[in-house]
Formats: sequence, structure tokens, C-alpha cells
Amino acid sequence: MRNTDTKGFTAVAELGKQDKERIARAALARLMEPQDSVGLALVRAVGAVDALGVASGELRTGQTLEQEISSLLVDGGGASSWAGLPASLRRWAPRVADLAPDRDLETMRRLGGRLIIPGDDLWPEQLADLGLQEPLCLWWRGQEQPLPSARQTIALVGSRDSTNYGASVTGDLAYGLAQRGYTVVSGGAYGIDAHAHRGALSGGVASVPTIAVMAGGVDRFYPSGNEDLLRAVSIQGAVISEVPPGSAPTRYRFLQRNRIIAALASVTVVVEARWRSGALNTAHHAETIGRVVAAVPGSIHSANSAGCHRLLRDGGAICVTDVGEIAELAGAIGEATSEEKDSGAAVHDGLSLEDLILLDALPLRSTSSVEKLTVVAGLSADSVRAGLGRLGLLGLAGSEGGGWKRVKNA
Amino acid sequence: MRNTDTKGFTAVAELGKQDKERIARAALARLMEPQDSVGLALVRAVGAVDALGVASGELRTGQTLEQEISSLLVDGGGASSWAGLPASLRRWAPRVADLAPDRDLETMRRLGGRLIIPGDDLWPEQLADLGLQEPLCLWWRGQEQPLPSARQTIALVGSRDSTNYGASVTGDLAYGLAQRGYTVVSGGAYGIDAHAHRGALSGGVASVPTIAVMAGGVDRFYPSGNEDLLRAVSIQGAVISEVPPGSAPTRYRFLQRNRIIAALASVTVVVEARWRSGALNTAHHAETIGRVVAAVPGSIHSANSAGCHRLLRDGGAICVTDVGEIAELAGAIGEATSEEKDSGAAVHDGLSLEDLILLDALPLRSTSSVEKLTVVAGLSADSVRAGLGRLGLLGLAGSEGGGWKRVKNA
Repeated sequence: MRNTDTKGFTAVAELGKQDKERIARAALARLMEPQDSVGLALVRAVGAVDALGVASGELRTGQTLEQEISSLLVDGGGASSWAGLPASLRRWAPRVADLAPDRDLETMRRLGGRLIIPGDDLWPEQLADLGLQEPLCLWWRGQEQPLPSARQTIALVGSRDSTNYGASVTGDLAYGLAQRGYTVVSGGAYGIDAHAHRGALSGGVASVPTIAVMAGGVDRFYPSGNEDLLRAVSIQGAVISEVPPGSAPTRYRFLQRNRIIAALASVTVVVEARWRSGALNTAHHAETIGRVVAAVPGSIHSANSAGCHRLLRDGGAICVTDVGEIAELAGAIGEATSEEKDSGAAVHDGLSLEDLILLDALPLRSTSSVEKLTVVAGLSADSVRAGLGRLGLLGLAGSEGGGWKRVKNA
Repeated sequence: MRNTDTKGFTAVAELGKQDKERIARAALARLMEPQDSVGLALVRAVGAVDALGVASGELRTGQTLEQEISSLLVDGGGASSWAGLPASLRRWAPRVADLAPDRDLETMRRLGGRLIIPGDDLWPEQLADLGLQEPLCLWWRGQEQPLPSARQTIALVGSRDSTNYGASVTGDLAYGLAQRGYTVVSGGAYGIDAHAHRGALSGGVASVPTIAVMAGGVDRFYPSGNEDLLRAVSIQGAVISEVPPGSAPTRYRFLQRNRIIAALASVTVVVEARWRSGALNTAHHAETIGRVVAAVPGSIHSANSAGCHRLLRDGGAICVTDVGEIAELAGAIGEATSEEKDSGAAVHDGLSLEDLILLDALPLRSTSSVEKLTVVAGLSADSVRAGLGRLGLLGLAGSEGGGWKRVKNA
């Protein structure tokens, strides 16, 4: 994560600036909840260092800044009216006393991790597609190595209470995607998420086979039943979060976290989801930023597929049933497409209508004369003769004792 | 089927004309295979009576007629080059000796049926959407009563080798649609078709609960294993075909028959189909004439759902999982839509983001002070107090000994 540019004084000054920015964002991540629009707009307007000064009450603000934030909020698709900076300052104030960014960064080092921020070489560029909602920073537990591009990343998401069907489908898809070199991103929860991470770990050939995006701090592997799994993910892949160590995984943070899963991947696949499910929220985030949403179909009797069918019906999701179809959506880094299935072509597929009629008219056991075939098939004698010739060449018809019959298994 | 118009001489002449037309079409149906474009264009050009004269070689033809047929073929979306009328005449010639329209019509009367042709009051108007491919006539076994409009008709189609899943889904959908007053149309085959007819017969409230469109003549209930079922369909509903009594159900006729199923209904639902299946052919016909194509999803491990998933992915089919969703597609003659499912709304669905954050911050077992909540939730003291008030009103938060806690089951 060190800046390896060594062009001299400017580079050193640059390095210092990025480190100050990092410390400020570490502090802001504790001050503000994820997707705090006003806070994020403030950072856009004046940079993280000054934003921290403003948010912590050390720097005074004026009318100009308020207006700048307003226009950033509007540009970001937010409400045109907001409560104003003083309201936000009151919201942030209670947490100012708790800020200890150096301690948080030290915690990450101790956990074998780091904090990355926009502008870092290691920052996943695709998160910029979130616009104003791009996270301030990512707390990252795992080996220091480049994270994959959106094109190389597939999100597999779904219900916590997965069925056997969902478990087996998720495991197969994750394993197959990992085998093709894709990174599987999910949320580290029980059910579909866990099967996604597990399948990717076992199939992984990419340097980062899987990424778990946590709703709480990465210091704790939550839920505890997934502790061993998430530890393995942190060793072989990456465990990341936008909230600092020690943060609880609240429901609000779960919902905000979903936008990061959606933004990291080119395709979000909902494997199993109930009519109401957090996975649909992830799908919605994906759609909002123009990512592809896919859904795996299942039994219409399974409540755990109702959300997938809802997405297929109303949500513009694409129906996917295997790894090849998902890879196709991701832009086909992979090899063969699902068109392979098309191989079982019947021999009569290429026949003209007349030849098909003639084939139908040919007896299987006895034989038939050309004259009789003209009546049965409703074709002229010339057409019957020509057709019999073509069918004969294809091995579909044969002559026997002056008559014609169909060749079996045709 | 008698023309009930009794305005006098003109009406009688009219009746005579339509009867001549009927006899001619009965003959032509035996002369020409279904969807014989040249034959159908010939009928369009000169009417059925003269078309029969031309086709049987009794009437001479000229250059003008050839040109007229050519332009009809082009308008109908067919090929601009064709072999010319003499080639067709040679094709029809072998069958001329077998023509006996009066015998065929008598057969239908004996079977308790009739022949209907375009222009009859009983002719299903929606078949005109087939354009040049509209059948010459329909041989109809069953009670004389109006056939339903496209809007009131749903096609349920699928594989012959249906699974238990396909059988149960088809039965449920057919029963439910029939209960809502829809007519279920299908192809009378084993598997999905049979379950569709059976379900509709048991649930039917419409005068024609179900229609079987046969690929062969209606004198024979084919396949023989469905004889009892098809007999019941002919008694309670209708069994129809465009080919005359005695015609064998050839593969070619099966494929052409599918366009009639598609055209009769407003929505064609493929319940179960393999990657290659005749049901996909029906779906294609439906799409071609602008009807809605729907598919029922299933397990991705079931080869019998692969065709449905293919339609969902590539074919523009709409995912349907229950009767309500199908009725919606048919234009919602029915009552309640599938939105009923949406009833399980969680109590916190309507909360603002701030209140959701606050709710997350509230402890379930112990209580928390306003001051502590400002830190945990990252909200100002004013916001926390206002939010607690709102949550309290909603029964989601309660105060206890000066502190606040979450109310269970919220």
C-alpha cells in the first residue's frame, strides 16, 4: 500500500498528502454512518482533511459551502432540500470524542490488514460508479494484492435460510466461476453467502477467489458460526468493510453494505431469495448503477425462489442456469458459451417443409410406392422423387424391393 | 350453425353462398396440407369455390392469377420467389380423386360436430391474426356454442414426458384459470397437455372450459391413451382440427397445429419443456403474431425446465408462477392480482433512514440513555429524542426506568 513512486520531493509531498487524507477518512468513517450523503458531499467539496475539520467543529463553515453541498446532493440524485449543515454537525458531534483514527489504523495493521481510500493503487476503480455514494474508505483484512475489476467479479447473493437446492446451486456456481478465474463476492452471511464463499475457495484459481463485504467491522468475523469460513476468506481472499473496526453490523449498515457488493461486481446473481429479501436490495443497487442483475429460477412451490421469480418478472433480471450463462453476462472472459447445449440437434432440423412432410409420409415397417407417397404427402411425383433422393442421402429414407421406407432411428 | 338471418331472398342466397364456400373449403382441406401458402393465397385471391376449381384442374388459370398470388405471398411475409402455380397443381393433383367433402361433412354430423369457416358466427375471430396462415376451416367435435375470445383463452403447453413437478403445476394452473372463467387450450398430447385439459375440466366454470387442438383428424382421439380424456373434452369443451377426419397426425401437422393453439389464446404459457421441444415452437408462433409468451420456472437441475429457462433468458418470455400473474398478462379479467403476496410488510418498512438507524441502535434486553444512543446511532440528541417519540408511537420502542429499549417482535 506504500506509494512506490520515488520521483523525489513532489512524490514525498504527495505521499504525505495521501496519508493525511487516509487518516482523515479513517476518522470520518467512524463519525458518519455509511452513505451519509451530506458527509460524503462535504468530503467531495473540501477534501477529507478539511471535511474532518468541519465535521468535528474545528473549522467554521459559510453559506458558500452549504450551497456547494446542496448542488452536490442534487447532482448525486439526492433530495434538493436538506436540513442544512448545522443539523449534520449536531448529528456528528456526539461521536467526535471517540475518534482515534491512528488506533483504528494500528488495529488493521495488527490484523494483517490495511485501510484503502480512493486514489490508492489498490482502490477498486469500479466503486466510482457509485458516484456520491462511493465509500469513504475500505477496511481490508487479507493479503495485500490487487483486487479484481468489475469484469472479473461476480456477486452471488441470497437468503440466509437457504434450501438444499439453493445451497447446491450456489456451491456449483461459485466453484465453477472460481475455476474460470472469476472472483466471487458476497456478504459473509449464513446460507447462500456462505455457500458462495465456500464454493469459490474450493474452486479458486484467481489470486483473490472470493471477497466478503461485511456490514460491521472486519475485526470481528460475523456471524460467529461463519468464523472459520471468514478467516479462510481473509487468508485466501479478502474481507472488507466501509465501517471501522469495532462497528456493529446493524440493519442499516447491512442495507448500505449491499451497494458495495453490487458495485464491485459486473453481474449480481440472486440465487435464492424470498419475496422480501435483502438480496433484492443488492439487486436494486446493482440495477441503479447499471450493473447486470441475474436470477436463478427454482420451483414455484419454493418460497425461497419467489424473490428470484419476482426479479425475473418485474425487475429486469436475466434468467441464468449455469456458469456459462453468467460468464456471458460478465462479458465472456470465459471460453465456451452455453450454446453448447444446442448440440442435440435432431437430424430432421434442417429439412425443408416438403421433405419433412415426405419423411412423415414414409412408412417405418412396410414400404410405399412413389405414387402412393404423392397421395399421402400431397406432393407431386417429381417432388416425391427428388425428396426421396435428398432423404436417402441423409440416411433418413431407403429403398427396398422397389418401394421406399423410412430408415429407423431417423 | 345455421344462418339465423331471415331477411328474405338475399339472406337465402347468402346462406347458399356460405354453404358452397364451406363445401369447397372442406375439399381444399383434404387437398392441401396445413399452411400451404400457395393454396391459401389462391383462396384469398379467388375465393374457396373457384380455388377448388383451379386446384382440381377444372378451371384454367392465367398470368394475372400467378401475379396476384405472388403479391399475396410477399404481403404474407413469405418468399418472393415461388415455383409457380403449375408446381402446386402437380402437388395437389394426386389427391383430387380422393375428394369427398360431402362425406367428410356427414362424418362430422355423425360425430356430433361440424365444420366452421371464416365468416361463420362461430368462427374464432382471433385466428385472423394469423394473416395468410389462417386455417381454411376447423373441424369441430363438441357442443355447438360460441368459442371464447383470445382474451378469455390461455394456452398451457409443454413436454409429453412431464415430471411430477410439471404435472402438479399444470394441474394447479389449469384448474385455477378455469375457475376464473378462462378457457384452457392445449394440444391433447400426453404429459403437460393432458394435465392442462384435465385440470381445466375439473375447475371449469366457462361454457367451454378447455379446447384440444389436434394435429390429426378429430374422428380419432389421439393418442389412444388420452381417449377418455379427449372424449370428455369433446363433451364439455371442444376438440378441433384444421385437417379433415381420417387425417394422420404427422410431425409436420403437429408443428402447423401449434400456430392455431398460439392464435386462439392471448397468452401461451410453457409450463415444462426441454431445451428442444415442440412447446417452444408454439411459443415462437405466439411471439410471431404478437401474443404474450410466458414460462414457468423450475429447478435448473431439471432438463424438463431447460426450455422454459431458455425462453426466459433469450425468448422474451415472461416469468409466471401463479394464476394471478397469468391473468394479469391476459388483461386481468380476473380479480385480485399477485400483488397480494406483498402483504407481509415488515413494520419498519416505512421508517426514515434515521429512525431505522435509531431502531438498530436500541438494545433489546437492557435499556440505553439518549446520550448513549447519540453515540451509537450517530445522531444528534434532538434527532434521537424525536426519533424515540416516533418509534414509541409505532410501538417499536419503549421507555423503562428512564432508559429506552426496543419492543420485542418489532
